[in-house]
Amino acid sequence: MKAARLESVSEMATRSVEKPIAGPGEILVKVLAAGICGSDRHMFKGEYPTARPVTLGHEFCGTVESIGQGVTRFSGGELVTIDPNIACGICPACRNAQPNLCARLTAIGVTRDGGFAEHAAVPEGQAFLLPADLDPVHGAFSEPLACCLHAIDKAEIRSGGSVAILGGGVIGLLMVQLAKLEGAAKVILITRQASRRQMALDLGATHAFDPSATDTVSAVRDLTGGGADVVIECAGVPETLRTGIAMTRRGGNFVLFGVTPAGLEVPITPFDLLVNEVTIRPAYLNPFTHDRAAALVASGALELDKLVTKTIGLDDVAAVIGQSPEAGEIKVIVRP
Amino acid sequence: MKAARLESVSEMATRSVEKPIAGPGEILVKVLAAGICGSDRHMFKGEYPTARPVTLGHEFCGTVESIGQGVTRFSGGELVTIDPNIACGICPACRNAQPNLCARLTAIGVTRDGGFAEHAAVPEGQAFLLPADLDPVHGAFSEPLACCLHAIDKAEIRSGGSVAILGGGVIGLLMVQLAKLEGAAKVILITRQASRRQMALDLGATHAFDPSATDTVSAVRDLTGGGADVVIECAGVPETLRTGIAMTRRGGNFVLFGVTPAGLEVPITPFDLLVNEVTIRPAYLNPFTHDRAAALVASGALELDKLVTKTIGLDDVAAVIGQSPEAGEIKVIVRP
Amino acid sequence: MKAARLESVSEMATRSVEKPIAGPGEILVKVLAAGICGSDRHMFKGEYPTARPVTLGHEFCGTVESIGQGVTRFSGGELVTIDPNIACGICPACRNAQPNLCARLTAIGVTRDGGFAEHAAVPEGQAFLLPADLDPVHGAFSEPLACCLHAIDKAEIRSGGSVAILGGGVIGLLMVQLAKLEGAAKVILITRQASRRQMALDLGATHAFDPSATDTVSAVRDLTGGGADVVIECAGVPETLRTGIAMTRRGGNFVLFGVTPAGLEVPITPFDLLVNEVTIRPAYLNPFTHDRAAALVASGALELDKLVTKTIGLDDVAAVIGQSPEAGEIKVIVRP
Amino acid sequence: MKAARLESVSEMATRSVEKPIAGPGEILVKVLAAGICGSDRHMFKGEYPTARPVTLGHEFCGTVESIGQGVTRFSGGELVTIDPNIACGICPACRNAQPNLCARLTAIGVTRDGGFAEHAAVPEGQAFLLPADLDPVHGAFSEPLACCLHAIDKAEIRSGGSVAILGGGVIGLLMVQLAKLEGAAKVILITRQASRRQMALDLGATHAFDPSATDTVSAVRDLTGGGADVVIECAGVPETLRTGIAMTRRGGNFVLFGVTPAGLEVPITPFDLLVNEVTIRPAYLNPFTHDRAAALVASGALELDKLVTKTIGLDDVAAVIGQSPEAGEIKVIVRP
Ligand SMILES: NC(=O)c1ccc[n+]([C@@H]2O[C@H](COP(=O)([O-])OP(=O)(O)OC[C@H]3O[C@@H](n4cnc5c(N)ncnc54)[C@H](OP(=O)(O)O)[C@@H]3O)[C@@H](O)[C@H]2O)c1
Ligand SMILES: NC(=O)c1ccc[n+]([C@@H]2O[C@H](COP(=O)([O-])OP(=O)(O)OC[C@H]3O[C@@H](n4cnc5c(N)ncnc54)[C@H](OP(=O)(O)O)[C@@H]3O)[C@@H](O)[C@H]2O)c1
Ligand SMILES: NC(=O)c1ccc[n+]([C@@H]2O[C@H](COP(=O)([O-])OP(=O)(O)OC[C@H]3O[C@@H](n4cnc5c(N)ncnc54)[C@H](OP(=O)(O)O)[C@@H]3O)[C@@H](O)[C@H]2O)c1
Ligand SMILES: NC(=O)c1ccc[n+]([C@@H]2O[C@H](COP(=O)([O-])OP(=O)(O)OC[C@H]3O[C@@H](n4cnc5c(N)ncnc54)[C@H](OP(=O)(O)O)[C@@H]3O)[C@@H](O)[C@H]2O)c1
Ligand SMILES: [Zn+2]
Ligand SMILES: [Zn+2]
Ligand SMILES: [Zn+2]
Ligand SMILES: [Zn+2]
Repeated sequence: MKAARLESVSEMATRSVEKPIAGPGEILVKVLAAGICGSDRHMFKGEYPTARPVTLGHEFCGTVESIGQGVTRFSGGELVTIDPNIACGICPACRNAQPNLCARLTAIGVTRDGGFAEHAAVPEGQAFLLPADLDPVHGAFSEPLACCLHAIDKAEIRSGGSVAILGGGVIGLLMVQLAKLEGAAKVILITRQASRRQMALDLGATHAFDPSATDTVSAVRDLTGGGADVVIECAGVPETLRTGIAMTRRGGNFVLFGVTPAGLEVPITPFDLLVNEVTIRPAYLNPFTHDRAAALVASGALELDKLVTKTIGLDDVAAVIGQSPEAGEIKVIVRP
Repeated sequence: MKAARLESVSEMATRSVEKPIAGPGEILVKVLAAGICGSDRHMFKGEYPTARPVTLGHEFCGTVESIGQGVTRFSGGELVTIDPNIACGICPACRNAQPNLCARLTAIGVTRDGGFAEHAAVPEGQAFLLPADLDPVHGAFSEPLACCLHAIDKAEIRSGGSVAILGGGVIGLLMVQLAKLEGAAKVILITRQASRRQMALDLGATHAFDPSATDTVSAVRDLTGGGADVVIECAGVPETLRTGIAMTRRGGNFVLFGVTPAGLEVPITPFDLLVNEVTIRPAYLNPFTHDRAAALVASGALELDKLVTKTIGLDDVAAVIGQSPEAGEIKVIVRP
Repeated sequence: MKAARLESVSEMATRSVEKPIAGPGEILVKVLAAGICGSDRHMFKGEYPTARPVTLGHEFCGTVESIGQGVTRFSGGELVTIDPNIACGICPACRNAQPNLCARLTAIGVTRDGGFAEHAAVPEGQAFLLPADLDPVHGAFSEPLACCLHAIDKAEIRSGGSVAILGGGVIGLLMVQLAKLEGAAKVILITRQASRRQMALDLGATHAFDPSATDTVSAVRDLTGGGADVVIECAGVPETLRTGIAMTRRGGNFVLFGVTPAGLEVPITPFDLLVNEVTIRPAYLNPFTHDRAAALVASGALELDKLVTKTIGLDDVAAVIGQSPEAGEIKVIVRP
Repeated sequence: MKAARLESVSEMATRSVEKPIAGPGEILVKVLAAGICGSDRHMFKGEYPTARPVTLGHEFCGTVESIGQGVTRFSGGELVTIDPNIACGICPACRNAQPNLCARLTAIGVTRDGGFAEHAAVPEGQAFLLPADLDPVHGAFSEPLACCLHAIDKAEIRSGGSVAILGGGVIGLLMVQLAKLEGAAKVILITRQASRRQMALDLGATHAFDPSATDTVSAVRDLTGGGADVVIECAGVPETLRTGIAMTRRGGNFVLFGVTPAGLEVPITPFDLLVNEVTIRPAYLNPFTHDRAAALVASGALELDKLVTKTIGLDDVAAVIGQSPEAGEIKVIVRP
């Protein structure tokens, strides 16, 4: 079968590999749709540790083609979405209900072969059932959505409240929809590209600001009478960290979601954090949320098609991952 | 009567003023004991806004001498502790159950006359009943303790868990006792002065480290197998902010309590916060905790006498506040 | 001015009384719209304690006509909604952030004159600003809505989850909208009257069942794959208490909101509660939620006009309150 | 080897069976101490479903004697405590962080052979490391303690608060110690046997009442000024359910822990629950708490020896389980 393989740092190619077999407790998934994620680009450049060689692709959806020994929940033919993150279940973090912080975390499409391939073999427990008639492209959004839901849990949005979201990539545009879904009366997106601001407004944001043209801290504070109840940082740059904290209302929640480079330092002002009681809540990965994400995707409550800006085949994966995102790119979907 | 008055920046004197009268809804308190707090020194230097002239003293305890019109809960003679922070009750923060973030907060001993005097007139609602036979010096600890309880609520300590406390002033030494009381199995105090480390061990800390002699991050991580469940910063300096975050376990809580100078920036590493999911929870003042603090003081569960390193009269207040704390000083009590 | 007065048990009349004057700290409100609530009927019958004689009416909205001494937040002309519940601020419950459980709670329209009158004098702190151009009838919904928001806080609805609501009165129909607003994917209303079930579906419910024709426990369990994440009881009868608990999923929340008669006992099965870990969370009154309710009403996110089934003048108040609700009645609004 | 086997309802015998072998992913534990629990008596009588024949014993501790294929965390010789409850990891409850509500829960000592035997084979993941020098009898307390910790998490005890515990069996006496450890200032045990009340006082309870001689509701309300902040029901009888709810303060938590017979109904008064906002929180089994229980046992913070009223060998297990508990019995320990 064909697979897009990361061979070594900055070397990726689509080539023929042996079709995997479902081992004991595993299922073999025929991949129907897989999303390219910013992390794939980091892995390509060696900025994020992976197995090598390895088939990338950690956001995917497909049908169960065959089942390994001992598998009981699937018989074949089901549409499933895969949670790529495999927690060990027995380290202190796992035993404390924090599998996202598992000391021995492995991941499909990172430390073992993933979904940029015609088939992938995965442990039964990582697969979540979807309705048979769901568009598999929607199913491929379950993984980023599950991460967003974890952030939303930490955000504690209340009906009628205000939410500011910094960064208008696919994550920011999912967050806009989730904030709306949670009943936020004011949903503000801050991003530089005009097309994304427009899309956010189309998706239900009530306001959108360009950080290169507007003093976003003042704008959000004016609009909300002192600061947003919740601010979600999804850009991963120092500027949004500083402005994001500054635009959170006294007693509000600042959710840290964007990934800044390892080691990079950003100055904060503890006095302001303290007297304003702004809580900083990081949200990392998808603990106990993949199930809810699959259900939410299945419910049709989210607009996902608009987020897909390009669809490619396996042969083009390396080219897309090897380059910076094009202007206007939101989500590239691979259909093997 | 005599009162220790802040007249203007860096000018303080004990002099005779008119004895206050309990206005409508107020009680007149005969002050029996009042604590000097680090904030008093900041107010003296003009680093923290106050009325001027004003009688300082926001941690105090005394007996009700007379009652103003409409007062129903007191008749005279009761021993009371005073919550100095007066919230307006009707600003957005007050209406959101966050009176510590009240937009119109005033404070006894800061914006109106306080407890470094023979008498003080305060609104009835700011007074909390204590058992008649309680040592008034203990009652004077209710205010700092109430702030600590708010921090403890944010810390979410679990029985059997580990807590590291940075800064061994009166606050740190109260926190040690509270962490112990919450069932923490490991309570680690980090402070430079050896006498304070010894006192912490006497008060129930299981370990104490000198940050000038030990790599406290490694020490705490070794001792706890990866980081403390909860870290409480009570020193208010950049170093403890950085080391404190670094010694918090993955998924743990870092409680920000110490007051750093306004405007001072401290670098943090967002990548580490994110992948370790360390939550930063500031705790400011005493929302809904003064009642519990008074009850806790009354229960006798805390060792408070050991924290009093000096007792002075009203005439010596200006001298103590006008100087830096002496080596070994923990809490100075004023007995008018 | 005219006022609808409860004179003694089961005796109510609209008559001329002296126009009230705004005392110190009070404002005089010209009432524009006031809602009749089921509790008004209980007060009429003497089943709920009130002052007597007293002007009823605890859900109202109007403009500030004059202000008493010391009032600073209003100058006259503002549109306001009134929180009728006046907490003392200093009892143990108030000092524990539970003003709805205040030991000395008084209430406008219950223990002092309320809003079924041309004017009402109320403490400044009970008034919440609304946009000047808001329909005052919408403003009159703030009070029941604030109670519902407290219940919604206790419910902990998650995006994509399922919510069953029992009882299709005005409360149930507000809850349907709030559950929808919180992102619930399945919102199920259970009530006997067909017209209400239809209205619920119009307002966003995904399903509606008639408890006299359907086994609602089975229906909800089937629909949700084992029970609703959240069940909100808004009928106040023994049947809904029992079926409501039984239709909650394992680990789910049952919110008790309906008022059953004092002293009435209902059997529950502790074994089932335990092994299914169904939590019973009562929600009573509106602690810290009136502000959010006012903002939500102002945002226009709720459909309120459809809930008004009749509008009357002051002269008809006694007749409506003295009788049982008519079939199809949801909310009767009084416009003085 | 010898094992105490439940053969059929009410038929139990200690006899020779084949020594188990550690299968793949399993470890073989040499049992050093195992506790007899009230549930064992229910299983004996067929009131609780089990496999049959089966070796009972779900509270045990021992050393790792050999390891199966693929086991990496143990090499042999380690002292371990066993969590008997095996969750499937992939049902909706497991994926929602509620493994105690797992739809396919199995249990060691219930649906597969347990610890009333010389050896037991268990999945590696069910074993938790203890310090090598810990008394294995203490290790055997980890399981009931883990269940208690789950209840304590739900109780939300605050330092200085009041806790009433109903039922003075081993569970109640562990709860007394945990409430104390959480900083409760008042810990009240209610149980009929005088010897248990005395033991509770020895273990740190501040008060103990005899429900057959005292009106416990009045006694607790008087002592706490209106009701305990937290009430934990550990008797499993209708009387304690009713009195327990009635002695909870307004806004307090009633934790349901005792197991009443399946199907048994107990009347409650919804009106009282509502206007007092007493939350009913059931706590079932030990989700994510076995690790903390093992650490707590290891820390030595609990008095466990006093709770052991008898120590027997394998041959006497059937006799003890086949009879009602003797007067004064708290915990019987089996040492194979
Ligand atoms: N915590 C987790 O578990 C988790 C999971 C997945 C992803 N992530 C992280 O979440 C972040 C967002 O992911 P994504 O896929 O949406 O990536 P993305 O496309 O890179 O989105 C980030 C966007 O932020 C915008 N941005 C950059 N500088 C900005 C500024 N100064 N102010 C406002 N917006 C700015 C950019 O859009 P414009 O050009 O329009 O400004 C950029 O496209 C990334 O850091 C990713 O690594 C975290
Ligand atoms: N958030 C609130 O509501 C609130 C309320 C009250 C007080 N506070 C703040 O809480 C903090 C503590 O109050 P306090 O009265 O206890 O004041 P304090 O006596 O000034 O205590 C701070 C102590 O921290 C220690 N320290 C300084 N540098 C350190 C370092 N690098 N590492 C470890 N320890 C260090 C010092 O003791 P050694 O000399 O032994 O190192 C110092 O005495 C202050 O910042 C105060 O403003 C906050
Ligand atoms: N907790 C609080 O703070 C608070 C605040 C306000 C109100 N409340 C209470 O909330 C409840 C609802 O208030 P409301 O104004 O909406 O009153 P309501 O009009 O009396 O609503 C209750 C509705 O429940 C329905 N019902 C009766 N028996 C039923 C059954 N067996 N199954 C399903 N539905 C049934 C009835 O509608 P059908 O004829 O269509 O069945 C009835 O109209 C009342 O008990 C009220 O006292 C509580
Ligand atoms: N939820 C869970 O996960 C879980 C886990 C383990 C155990 N449990 C349950 O927890 C309960 C306690 O367990 P245990 O092992 O301690 O059992 P236990 O020895 O049966 O303890 C219950 C004690 O309650 C006392 N009691 C009986 N009637 C009473 C009354 N009217 N008022 C006050 N006390 C009364 C009895 O002691 P006196 O003779 O002194 O009155 C009895 O010994 C049991 O129901 C058990 O099934 C639950
Ligand atoms: Zn793990
Ligand atoms: Zn305020
Ligand atoms: Zn009150
Ligand atoms: Zn399961």
